[in-house]
Amino acid sequence: MASIFTKIINREIPAHIVAEDENYLAFLDIMPLVKGHVLVVPKQEVDYIFDLAPDALAGLHLFAQKVAKAMDKTIKCTRIGVAVIGLEVPHVHIHLVPLRTMDDINFTRPKLKLSSEELAEIAEMIKKGF
Amino acid sequence: MASIFTKIINREIPAHIVAEDENYLAFLDIMPLVKGHVLVVPKQEVDYIFDLAPDALAGLHLFAQKVAKAMDKTIKCTRIGVAVIGLEVPHVHIHLVPLRTMDDINFTRPKLKLSSEELAEIAEMIKKGF
Repeated sequence: MASIFTKIINREIPAHIVAEDENYLAFLDIMPLVKGHVLVVPKQEVDYIFDLAPDALAGLHLFAQKVAKAMDKTIKCTRIGVAVIGLEVPHVHIHLVPLRTMDDINFTRPKLKLSSEELAEIAEMIKKGF
Repeated sequence: MASIFTKIINREIPAHIVAEDENYLAFLDIMPLVKGHVLVVPKQEVDYIFDLAPDALAGLHLFAQKVAKAMDKTIKCTRIGVAVIGLEVPHVHIHLVPLRTMDDINFTRPKLKLSSEELAEIAEMIKKGF
């Protein structure tokens, strides 16, 4: 069965997309740790990041770098943090998290609940910076 | 002033090194979240990961992939998690953390205190797998 991220890639379910190219997609996490929390995924459905071919892994991180630079320009934070955990959705995803403190990237704490309008506004800002 | 990681790279202060090439170094975090927590650094002293040139960023992640594969072979865990935070030492470092649960990569929780002998043993195992 297609992963939830493949369904987003295929536009079968909606998402607040911030950047896309032939091989990668970036969109807002709808359960964000902080405002502007983005997920970057390869269009290829692979479960574990270290199972990606070296070219695909390098390409994913280079695409994420461009997204992070757009986030740095548009979101108030000290820097963009990176996390790859992968214990939940079996489709590689890099979390890009605008950081001010260490706790901003603590995945055990409660997630924010943002309205669709707020998410759309944040996505639009990052998209313009990309 | 040279960062603590540059001092490790230059062998001015000791570390439990697990892998090295011309441009990158991997060694055990001495304040690990879990056993086998590794730091991967570029020898070039840059503060923020997204300021690395694309080639250097790709190379860093490809080196980290090789280290993670060695860790997967030698350390009991579900998978290797990745984090880049960078609010403390101003020298790019990727955390590679053997994961079983989400809390294993929660940087706000107390760190482990392992003996030098335990660290040396873990480093030796990963080194052999590299």
